Amino acid sequence: MQDEGLGSKGLVRRQILVTTGALAAGAALAHFGGFLNSAEATGGSTEKWPWPYEKLDPAKTAEIAYNEWYRVFCGAAVINSVFSQLREKVGEPYKSFPSDAFVFLEGGQVGWGTVCGSPAGANIVANLIIGPRIAGAHEGHQIAVDMMQWYSETALPVYSPKEPKQATKIITTTSDSPLCHLSVGKWMKASGYALASPERKDRCARVAASSAYQVVSMLNDWKDGKYVAKSDFSCGKEFGITGQYNCNDCHGDKVPTAPQLPVVAATPAKS
Amino acid sequence: MQDEGLGSKGLVRRQILVTTGALAAGAALAHFGGFLNSAEATGGSTEKWPWPYEKLDPAKTAEIAYNEWYRVFCGAAVINSVFSQLREKVGEPYKSFPSDAFVFLEGGQVGWGTVCGSPAGANIVANLIIGPRIAGAHEGHQIAVDMMQWYSETALPVYSPKEPKQATKIITTTSDSPLCHLSVGKWMKASGYALASPERKDRCARVAASSAYQVVSMLNDWKDGKYVAKSDFSCGKEFGITGQYNCNDCHGDKVPTAPQLPVVAATPAKS
Repeated sequence: MQDEGLGSKGLVRRQILVTTGALAAGAALAHFGGFLNSAEATGGSTEKWPWPYEKLDPAKTAEIAYNEWYRVFCGAAVINSVFSQLREKVGEPYKSFPSDAFVFLEGGQVGWGTVCGSPAGANIVANLIIGPRIAGAHEGHQIAVDMMQWYSETALPVYSPKEPKQATKIITTTSDSPLCHLSVGKWMKASGYALASPERKDRCARVAASSAYQVVSMLNDWKDGKYVAKSDFSCGKEFGITGQYNCNDCHGDKVPTAPQLPVVAATPAKS
Repeated sequence: MQDEGLGSKGLVRRQILVTTGALAAGAALAHFGGFLNSAEATGGSTEKWPWPYEKLDPAKTAEIAYNEWYRVFCGAAVINSVFSQLREKVGEPYKSFPSDAFVFLEGGQVGWGTVCGSPAGANIVANLIIGPRIAGAHEGHQIAVDMMQWYSETALPVYSPKEPKQATKIITTTSDSPLCHLSVGKWMKASGYALASPERKDRCARVAASSAYQVVSMLNDWKDGKYVAKSDFSCGKEFGITGQYNCNDCHGDKVPTAPQLPVVAATPAKS
């Protein structure tokens, strides 16, 4: 992969991001975190991974998420759309998981506009089922990476509910970010609808439904042993800081250069 | 509170934000979400709130979080610092909660630089213990709001570990944001240390410790019935969009105006 440098202008990530290929997961993770400890789980039986998973119908899951949004908003709606079905099909540990506590993911966490609750909820689902990377499997982490990129690059909402609560046509917008502030803001700007409008709420319910569809599709592939990582993006690896792919969208042409590790002189090999 | 208008220049939130006062919680939440449904929890016994809570020593909790960071990173470290103690003191439902699955909160969710895992983990803790606002109590939501504001406005890290893993002095910076990208970025810029440096890692471990200290302090106050909300900030209410208080930091002088709801003409009263 080309090293574009953090200070260069016109950082174009798209052509790199959309390439489908195997992830050099170890390298990317090692660069960011610097180490991979072995798991020393402190919880009970729920910290044995993976959790038993049965494939779900993505469309049915999306429909549940759409309706759940009107009860528990984006993050908990995505979690419940998957876990309510697995409670029936599998039972524990899904029955013991308090999904409704995640209502606070609404509005990018209690309205602060950070990560949209829909990908945040999907990331929770994937990592609860597959487990954290420190437990030995990297697919939960990778599905979350794919979720962040898919959410950022897709014209949302994708999913149209069978029984929409709003008859108005809901337009689609691409957020180029997993942040609620940008996702909701760009949609409001394009549609002209206010935050408190029924149309904005229905748009977000459909985004939750779209995200639930997406994460279940990836989990089904994982269950079948055919999940392939789509994103090889690591902001830490490429730019030396956590973040997104589109530096210029916020920084303009003045993208700061992140501090680098001191270069350690190589020990000369014996001749 | 003064209505400053989204299009005005020089939005100064600080003097409003630092005021301590009772939150008009109903008004703020109703404005953002538009409705408050009654809870219809679909989970098991873990969805009966509040969970039993016993007061914890904030300093001891911070020390656990600091050390846990080196095993599970920021988000799971904060969760485990509280729940590992409550597993001992209380037992269930803490034993059944799979804290380690939240490793993915690292780096603002799998390195994407969104919400820092430390406040995200603290928000999970508060909302698991107190419950979601749809279940009838608003303190979990409010502690999360306070957490987001405290994190943004505090020179971090506050907490110094008893046995630091790095001898280097760790400077403090104020992020003015709950986003990992900004929090880590401003610290790296001020300190000169790279993302992969041991110093940056220790800084983040101390931020996790500081956040654990803060959330346990608020939970202890809540347990004693003396928790008072510190933040009355609602971006949705004030600016018509989810987000932070400091619009100008990203938008400069060109802060967009969010679409507003159509003004419905009042029905003339009978004379």
